[in-house]
Amino acid sequence: MTETTAEALADRVRAGELRLHELEEHAAADVATAARRLLVAETVDADVDVLGEYAFDAAAADANIENMIGAVQVPLGVAGPVAVDGDALSGDRYLPLATTEGALVASINRGCSVLNDAGGATARVTKRGMTRAPVFRVADVAAATALVEWVDDNISELRAAAEATTNHGELVDVTPYVVGNNVYLRFRYDTKDAMGMNMATIATGEACALIEAETDASLVALSGNLCSDKKPAAVNAVEGRGRSVSADVTIPREIVEERLHTTPAAIAEINTRKNLVGSAKAGSLGFNAHVANAVAAMFLATGQDEAQVVEGANAITTAETTPEGDLYCSVSLASLEVGTVGGGTRLPTQAAGLEILGVRGGGDPAGTNADALAEAIAVGALAGELSLLAALGSRHLSSAHADLGR
Amino acid sequence: MTETTAEALADRVRAGELRLHELEEHAAADVATAARRLLVAETVDADVDVLGEYAFDAAAADANIENMIGAVQVPLGVAGPVAVDGDALSGDRYLPLATTEGALVASINRGCSVLNDAGGATARVTKRGMTRAPVFRVADVAAATALVEWVDDNISELRAAAEATTNHGELVDVTPYVVGNNVYLRFRYDTKDAMGMNMATIATGEACALIEAETDASLVALSGNLCSDKKPAAVNAVEGRGRSVSADVTIPREIVEERLHTTPAAIAEINTRKNLVGSAKAGSLGFNAHVANAVAAMFLATGQDEAQVVEGANAITTAETTPEGDLYCSVSLASLEVGTVGGGTRLPTQAAGLEILGVRGGGDPAGTNADALAEAIAVGALAGELSLLAALGSRHLSSAHADLGR
Amino acid sequence: MTETTAEALADRVRAGELRLHELEEHAAADVATAARRLLVAETVDADVDVLGEYAFDAAAADANIENMIGAVQVPLGVAGPVAVDGDALSGDRYLPLATTEGALVASINRGCSVLNDAGGATARVTKRGMTRAPVFRVADVAAATALVEWVDDNISELRAAAEATTNHGELVDVTPYVVGNNVYLRFRYDTKDAMGMNMATIATGEACALIEAETDASLVALSGNLCSDKKPAAVNAVEGRGRSVSADVTIPREIVEERLHTTPAAIAEINTRKNLVGSAKAGSLGFNAHVANAVAAMFLATGQDEAQVVEGANAITTAETTPEGDLYCSVSLASLEVGTVGGGTRLPTQAAGLEILGVRGGGDPAGTNADALAEAIAVGALAGELSLLAALGSRHLSSAHADLGR
Amino acid sequence: MTETTAEALADRVRAGELRLHELEEHAAADVATAARRLLVAETVDADVDVLGEYAFDAAAADANIENMIGAVQVPLGVAGPVAVDGDALSGDRYLPLATTEGALVASINRGCSVLNDAGGATARVTKRGMTRAPVFRVADVAAATALVEWVDDNISELRAAAEATTNHGELVDVTPYVVGNNVYLRFRYDTKDAMGMNMATIATGEACALIEAETDASLVALSGNLCSDKKPAAVNAVEGRGRSVSADVTIPREIVEERLHTTPAAIAEINTRKNLVGSAKAGSLGFNAHVANAVAAMFLATGQDEAQVVEGANAITTAETTPEGDLYCSVSLASLEVGTVGGGTRLPTQAAGLEILGVRGGGDPAGTNADALAEAIAVGALAGELSLLAALGSRHLSSAHADLGR
Repeated sequence: MTETTAEALADRVRAGELRLHELEEHAAADVATAARRLLVAETVDADVDVLGEYAFDAAAADANIENMIGAVQVPLGVAGPVAVDGDALSGDRYLPLATTEGALVASINRGCSVLNDAGGATARVTKRGMTRAPVFRVADVAAATALVEWVDDNISELRAAAEATTNHGELVDVTPYVVGNNVYLRFRYDTKDAMGMNMATIATGEACALIEAETDASLVALSGNLCSDKKPAAVNAVEGRGRSVSADVTIPREIVEERLHTTPAAIAEINTRKNLVGSAKAGSLGFNAHVANAVAAMFLATGQDEAQVVEGANAITTAETTPEGDLYCSVSLASLEVGTVGGGTRLPTQAAGLEILGVRGGGDPAGTNADALAEAIAVGALAGELSLLAALGSRHLSSAHADLGR
Repeated sequence: MTETTAEALADRVRAGELRLHELEEHAAADVATAARRLLVAETVDADVDVLGEYAFDAAAADANIENMIGAVQVPLGVAGPVAVDGDALSGDRYLPLATTEGALVASINRGCSVLNDAGGATARVTKRGMTRAPVFRVADVAAATALVEWVDDNISELRAAAEATTNHGELVDVTPYVVGNNVYLRFRYDTKDAMGMNMATIATGEACALIEAETDASLVALSGNLCSDKKPAAVNAVEGRGRSVSADVTIPREIVEERLHTTPAAIAEINTRKNLVGSAKAGSLGFNAHVANAVAAMFLATGQDEAQVVEGANAITTAETTPEGDLYCSVSLASLEVGTVGGGTRLPTQAAGLEILGVRGGGDPAGTNADALAEAIAVGALAGELSLLAALGSRHLSSAHADLGR
Repeated sequence: MTETTAEALADRVRAGELRLHELEEHAAADVATAARRLLVAETVDADVDVLGEYAFDAAAADANIENMIGAVQVPLGVAGPVAVDGDALSGDRYLPLATTEGALVASINRGCSVLNDAGGATARVTKRGMTRAPVFRVADVAAATALVEWVDDNISELRAAAEATTNHGELVDVTPYVVGNNVYLRFRYDTKDAMGMNMATIATGEACALIEAETDASLVALSGNLCSDKKPAAVNAVEGRGRSVSADVTIPREIVEERLHTTPAAIAEINTRKNLVGSAKAGSLGFNAHVANAVAAMFLATGQDEAQVVEGANAITTAETTPEGDLYCSVSLASLEVGTVGGGTRLPTQAAGLEILGVRGGGDPAGTNADALAEAIAVGALAGELSLLAALGSRHLSSAHADLGR
Repeated sequence: MTETTAEALADRVRAGELRLHELEEHAAADVATAARRLLVAETVDADVDVLGEYAFDAAAADANIENMIGAVQVPLGVAGPVAVDGDALSGDRYLPLATTEGALVASINRGCSVLNDAGGATARVTKRGMTRAPVFRVADVAAATALVEWVDDNISELRAAAEATTNHGELVDVTPYVVGNNVYLRFRYDTKDAMGMNMATIATGEACALIEAETDASLVALSGNLCSDKKPAAVNAVEGRGRSVSADVTIPREIVEERLHTTPAAIAEINTRKNLVGSAKAGSLGFNAHVANAVAAMFLATGQDEAQVVEGANAITTAETTPEGDLYCSVSLASLEVGTVGGGTRLPTQAAGLEILGVRGGGDPAGTNADALAEAIAVGALAGELSLLAALGSRHLSSAHADLGR
């Protein structure tokens, strides 16, 4: 690697000798990054020096970014520790939350505190599987049914082809969908501790090659949107993607009254009118108050794919008064796509976020760290739901008092 | 403020003298942050020092975070510059993208390059308005119709109450929805350059107080989920929220062939089978390939609310062959909630992200900077769609060649 | 009209002299119908004589059917009378229900009986408006915003053009939706006592002609599916189409226990777990138990368009325990498209169905008969919901008893 | 049975001796029906005699209706004959259509004619299964996962319990969905030639009894709305219910031009802008023009459940230009619930409707008659789509001509 300065490197771009994305070929990653920062800044006379104060090795980030000019810094706070009774995660954990929305960490922290008073939250992963759904063009609907039959008859061969590409991934099943001369095949994989989108894509690619070689079907796109990645789609909300995970708690009535200044009945009413009926009227796939907040903040803190917050918002919150007069509250996230290896988890600050939860790297057995991360996020979401519903409820209660002239 | 060390402060927490969220009352923000970092790390024996290497003033971040322990650093790259012909944004701009997903910046960059070859992208904001929809409980459906009538008759008074809380915001309209004894009132505001969720909430709170004072309706929740914030909801996809914004381009056939190694017809076919028919079958509100990627990365780079990526994914991509044989491609985002003042935009690296686009702070006239940001994101999304569709198409083309024995 | 026999007429078709749809030009409608019946029967050796035993004037049905071979007969039952407190319909009414599903009439009848015991049901139309939404192709998104602006500036001219085609209809408003180079304009009309689809289509056609004459926009289709007719679409569920109508009741606890053999709490629980949470998980636009049953049976009995049962199923049922321990139950239908003039309402048996409700023909003032029909159907739907929820609840109660060893 | 007159029987009701639904215990069904007709008519002074002119045995309709007062008569027309190449239905068939919407039969007839010119339509059932999804309440999410595991481990026992209730039905699989302390189990059955809702309900009831006996789960409702019956739900649109069935055709370009007065490209464009993009923007589960019309009219003509037209509208229409310049068009109905035995199929006119298609009664092998009915309806829907798209296209073409000054 030539030793050079950012300014010198920038000059070569200005002179037309180099293109912006070629700088790493001519200088160290940090220098290339600095040079680009200079060039970008001068186009709009911007002050962007702060972007250069990053605390990681630019060269090591090359699997995460191109045309790097620096880093964005997002404040990180913690809620908890909160007591979690999960299948994969047990004990007290701080929840790392990266956000710029004031009051969010405080709100989730309050929820965690109430969860603890109630003995902690229960959490379970109820379904697993990363999906990829290519779309094939066939001659007509007769050919479509023939292809579906072929897939059914050759599932072992497809599995062998797909799994040959991966050390860890396993093909779970393939679900076909026919629309005229389009056949969508939704491949579902157990990708263990990886979020698994790349693994699933590569494996499915091989399976598609087999299909094209053995049938008349023509692959149109390796993703036909029945997957469905980074779109708010019912197929994920109904059938799940990544992890389907639920967390719940029963909070004694006295704790609701003393700590949250409201009643189980008030919280149940608000949940019904807002999260269930309101979302129903809105034509929503999200029947919750603000689950996306916890998901986005914990995704950012742990190196997950921020665009997958979209599916993370496919969640249903329930709240009810138990026969004993206590509050039962749950949150169920249908399609939470998480991993503890690969992708953004390799970056230093994101790895630290995973360390705080004790789930960095591969789990033992494989898959349990990603399960644990999913359970932690579900508990964070539950804490957030409780806190916001209670805030609405306490206002509600004071208003109810006012109505009664007290 | 007492001068103390992080270790000393941590000791006081360990001793039960202080609670985690009280540290700023007893030490400088940086020290409090460091103390919490120590305490969090020791619970799981984690190495989290890197979280402390942040490049902003912890004290100044107190409107963005609580229980701060440091910062997450996300690599920032740029695509472009790309030529934009918008109403609020014109000229060549680099697009700042913060992500950990490798290849994303490169993909959008390739799209920008093709947009430039075609003369740049056109972009327009087609609708504006931040919404907040409280839910009221009334006696029955007769009372519900009476309340709807009252709101219609007293819209001026409601506007006065709402607008008294804000210097900039304007109440545009109020749309009622009745479900049994629930009345949802969707207040829509012009919030200028602010994303406006807080502004809309506070203003609506005052309007609700008037309604409760003057009618028998009882406010159940200031947000009844018809807003709909951070949930994938049809009400946003259909009616819009924040900015509805479209970007498009017509790319000459030769450019498609030479630069993208595919044809307008192939791209149109893929878009139909994948983004339209595939998403239709998936029960989706997102008829696109990966718009959420551009939205999430530009949101992160410019200090937007990451949880609102959920609504940002409510987008439709179209692609068609023109009568002349060229490619027309568009992307329309229904509910992009953006601001250039307030919230995360005040943080240094995020402010730098806005500077790169030339849209930091309030616009002149007010609202035009947020419009410009929306247009920039739409163009980024268009570049990303083009690039991914083309990648699928070129594979498709080579496959087509293979089919033909070439 | 030549006097001839069905057999002779059929011979001429067999001989290739006449085509099946031309028979009315050569014989009376009844004879033509009989001839076609013969011809159809012989192709599959079917016994279809019973289709000829219809009780109306075939010639008068020519606005309702082509290629007529007879009539289908659907059993008609009644539920009630039920006490209705509506805006447009007040008093005790039998509800006519045409169905082949055994137990449906009995179920709704039981619900009506309980409604009466509780003092009757309240019903209100909360929104009105038949819609038609043409789609236009424009050059690009810049042209799209220009068209939207033009429509806004020329709403009076559009209204004049549209209303020139109708004696009764009034254009209420036009809502634009932009998707790339597509502009959808949702025209909403007050069509009084007519269901109004034809009226809205014709009027919109004239408005479109004006738009094409005055702008560069090109009409692609007079219906662009944003209407949305006969499709299960969120735009209808959220914004309404035809009539949005709600019915509700508060049933004293003793009546629930004695007549329905369950409790308000049990019904509320079932409604939440089934109609709200279950439908939420199903990705549904229908948050109810079986509203479509009442809608379909009353549509058939009163000459409505059976295909519009699709939108009629966009309904939300709520059930809750009041502070006094009684049961509040409501049903809200978002998009019930009904008329008391035109279409199938002119046929004798269907007219009789309307007569039973006292809503045949135009109302005074105009529109009140269709309002009354909507209120009647909402009450029928409410009765059906109550009855089914109670049936589930009483089983539930007995099961609860069994759990307790009683 | 006492011999009595309708008037005498009515007197006894007026005197309070009998209740309306008890009349069949005291007189022949026809007399009871007539007596009720008198009583209903006098409440609103209505003329309803025509309702008494029905052509079937009232006593034999007692499995289809209660409180019968007569029958509604709906005009029946035919389209076709149309050439069908299906798995279960092959050859030329008239399609029976009962409707009151003028022009509908003519439109479908025109479509059939063009299908014939193109060599007929292909049709295939791509998925089968009637579903019922009870909802259980469990203690918490840990108990929910335990129940899901129990179901998985005891599928044989559940199958035995379910299938013991039916001679024909077979349990295919059970899919679990967890939402907090709610567990929904979607049982899917092969119900052969029966639509199967009753069969599935009874069989599932027995399986639920086993679950309650062997686990701590408590059945809340035998239908938890994940089924989902008579609601517009994504679970049906995505996963299917009843029959998923597709029909398609390739129409040579000359036929499109000569017979439909438009072009393949124009039809493809309209389908994309209206049925795909328009429905996408509408938040729809129905991506078609008017499939519900064919479904409703053929359902009515063949004794199907009219309320299930709701799910029948979950259909996607595609249209594209083939490489040869011809038109490929398809329609895929996700959830068409049909039967040729039981329910309304036993009534005389409805049985005649089935006879016209040659699919009355049980098929050989079992299930093939219901398959054939599904294929016939899909072809009718395809004919209707083609006809309407072509009507829009020919206008489009003439408009295009006008644009060009011709």
